Amino acid sequence: MRIYDIIEKKRDGYKLTKEEIDFFVQEYTKENVEDYQASALLMAIFINGMDEEETVNLTESMAKSGDMLDLSAIDGITADKHSTGGVGDKTSLVVAPICASLGIKMAKMSGRGLGHTGGTIDKLESIEGFNVTLDTDDFFKQVNEIGISIIGQTGNLAPADKKIYALRDVTATVGNISLIASSIMSKKIAAGAQNIVLDVKCGSGAFMKDEQSATELAEMMVKIGKKCGRNIAAVITNMDIPLGSNVGNALEIKEVIDILNNKGDKQLRELCLVLSATILSISYDWTYEEAYKKAEQTISDGSAYKKFIEFVNAQGGNSDFTTLPVAKKSLEIKAVKDGYIQSIDSRIVGESAVLLGAGREKKTDTIDYSTGIVLYKKTCDRVSVGDTIAILYAETDERLKNGEKLFNTSYVIGEEMPEILPLIYKTIR
Amino acid sequence: MRIYDIIEKKRDGYKLTKEEIDFFVQEYTKENVEDYQASALLMAIFINGMDEEETVNLTESMAKSGDMLDLSAIDGITADKHSTGGVGDKTSLVVAPICASLGIKMAKMSGRGLGHTGGTIDKLESIEGFNVTLDTDDFFKQVNEIGISIIGQTGNLAPADKKIYALRDVTATVGNISLIASSIMSKKIAAGAQNIVLDVKCGSGAFMKDEQSATELAEMMVKIGKKCGRNIAAVITNMDIPLGSNVGNALEIKEVIDILNNKGDKQLRELCLVLSATILSISYDWTYEEAYKKAEQTISDGSAYKKFIEFVNAQGGNSDFTTLPVAKKSLEIKAVKDGYIQSIDSRIVGESAVLLGAGREKKTDTIDYSTGIVLYKKTCDRVSVGDTIAILYAETDERLKNGEKLFNTSYVIGEEMPEILPLIYKTIR
Repeated sequence: MRIYDIIEKKRDGYKLTKEEIDFFVQEYTKENVEDYQASALLMAIFINGMDEEETVNLTESMAKSGDMLDLSAIDGITADKHSTGGVGDKTSLVVAPICASLGIKMAKMSGRGLGHTGGTIDKLESIEGFNVTLDTDDFFKQVNEIGISIIGQTGNLAPADKKIYALRDVTATVGNISLIASSIMSKKIAAGAQNIVLDVKCGSGAFMKDEQSATELAEMMVKIGKKCGRNIAAVITNMDIPLGSNVGNALEIKEVIDILNNKGDKQLRELCLVLSATILSISYDWTYEEAYKKAEQTISDGSAYKKFIEFVNAQGGNSDFTTLPVAKKSLEIKAVKDGYIQSIDSRIVGESAVLLGAGREKKTDTIDYSTGIVLYKKTCDRVSVGDTIAILYAETDERLKNGEKLFNTSYVIGEEMPEILPLIYKTIR
Repeated sequence: MRIYDIIEKKRDGYKLTKEEIDFFVQEYTKENVEDYQASALLMAIFINGMDEEETVNLTESMAKSGDMLDLSAIDGITADKHSTGGVGDKTSLVVAPICASLGIKMAKMSGRGLGHTGGTIDKLESIEGFNVTLDTDDFFKQVNEIGISIIGQTGNLAPADKKIYALRDVTATVGNISLIASSIMSKKIAAGAQNIVLDVKCGSGAFMKDEQSATELAEMMVKIGKKCGRNIAAVITNMDIPLGSNVGNALEIKEVIDILNNKGDKQLRELCLVLSATILSISYDWTYEEAYKKAEQTISDGSAYKKFIEFVNAQGGNSDFTTLPVAKKSLEIKAVKDGYIQSIDSRIVGESAVLLGAGREKKTDTIDYSTGIVLYKKTCDRVSVGDTIAILYAETDERLKNGEKLFNTSYVIGEEMPEILPLIYKTIR
């Protein structure tokens, strides 16, 4: 088998066999296939497409390119939740304790953030003492004991995907449904959970800009999950506006604590309950409505918050959350005219948070955990001159200034009340 | 301007501007664009195509990437002839003296062969003492004095094409009309001749397998030539069977001498006359018929052969052609049954000649100038058991054996007389 022939075949629009896809993935991982050959093939795949079978084969091949986590050491039902990435998205930290408090084993490996605010791992590290690097034995032991552990992704989970993704990123071959779906699903399959719920974001702050492309992606990922023998569902959710009020690591931990204490942003709470109910209803023999009610119950009776404290303590974190870092500098953004907030561009809010210190532009950048943005007004809210729209937090005046400048381009105030967009578009099972 | 955006644009099927094409060609030549980005762009171009304007822009950009030969130091009318490459193609060495003996200035830079038998330069080097490396001043001086010089291509003629072609060769992006046309034409434009005739081969031994694709390529190249202000014509010719009788460097020089002495293979003679007449009729105010007659005259009156001897002597070659190298070993291939030769696969004949020592598989391979194949029977010829079909020449028994094994798969003997294909399909002006 020769990579040249495989490139030629896809170039001419033919379907690749499982053997050909395996050959590409294995030989590229072993560096026997050159980057320039891989990128030619990826462009041919981008333009000519892959069908469902090819996409499943690519996913499995990438999943098998490194360690396949064996969760059989964990007693009970395992579940995993994945978000395609959004600004202010802290749902994992609410959903995991809700589901764990209802007996689901949440063994989650998570990434760090790049290009917008920190990932789940970065958010957890804003808690004093929190340790995100457990070895596999300790990880499994903790999941068995308290039902939940979240650690940083190990180096050897789907290495082929890592290598291929890095190449796609610089060759304009990212935005293809089959390639996105196989990239996400290869890591989920390798991570081993039996039940998987995907939060597919859609809107200005997300990779998928409209409902139709988000639906296509969600359907493809659900098909892949099923072909790989997993229980899976995908919820398509709005990312036109940032999720919740807080953007930035310690600020988001505070918001998680609020939600788990039956307070805070209603939309964020609703999304957390929907995702939890989806996980519970595919994992147990419960209807979605039953699952939703039970999830709600864990918040109102305090059991989810108790589970969160247990989890933080188990990984060495300080559960006296008054020790969370607080930024030295802050700045109120006030409305300069009366009207309605027409829109808040999630992407720009995320980028502003990065300028404030809450995220990384390069892998080597460090994060100021204390920094970020708290939104007091969001799309459709009525504002009068002088009302506080948001407060920005940073460690230096310079960063505050840079963040302010960009943040001020993120929202528009107008006279008409804009159309209210749904938070959740649909669920695909 | 960013290469990423250019890749994305062509990926989505849009037309690239002159500035974008220039950016790619210049930055890739300067190694500011990575191979993996160039190959992604080339695959997008391959699949989504380029229109005539883009193809002209790519050609000019590649032509300008290195030296542009200024032939104004040559007095009179300059012409160049290019073949898209065929097995046994020695027409340049006949056409150049014919045209030069009629006053055309033939200043030709030529390549070495790779993948089949040697190129024109290799053929000339089989003549004792022949020097293919003149500096530009001597090259021009010789052309002014005797009307003809053929030298090896200098390193800096269209370097962008060289780099891009090498990448296309390993990424399955060779066979696209716009990319082939711009590659060939960039070198022709940089080489500076005012009048250009292209011999576009078509058939099993050529890159273009059928008349239609050869016509498309020829039309595109003629359009490019005209847009770049040159007189140009393309002749589409048959390459289903090898050209002439001899394949291999010194063997082909012998055949050139035969043709110039009014002897030898009739088809080869006819093609040389057609190409010469085409050059003469676009360069002078002559009709094609007049030009053809005058070309024929130069053979019958010996002036073309006289010009060839002058040319060989001027570049230090020994014009006592009895000194041409002769192979140590030879082997007759005899017909094992009665019938007609149904076909001779040019490509396999060419590859057999390489095995015998007449060509290079890798750039670093050396050539045995004496070796090759003389064909005594060709497609449509009647053979009886024991008739000599060909004689193979090599320097060692091992090479002879390898060549024989492959050569025996190149021809088929059958009962029916096959259809006679035309030698020349058409001329595009």
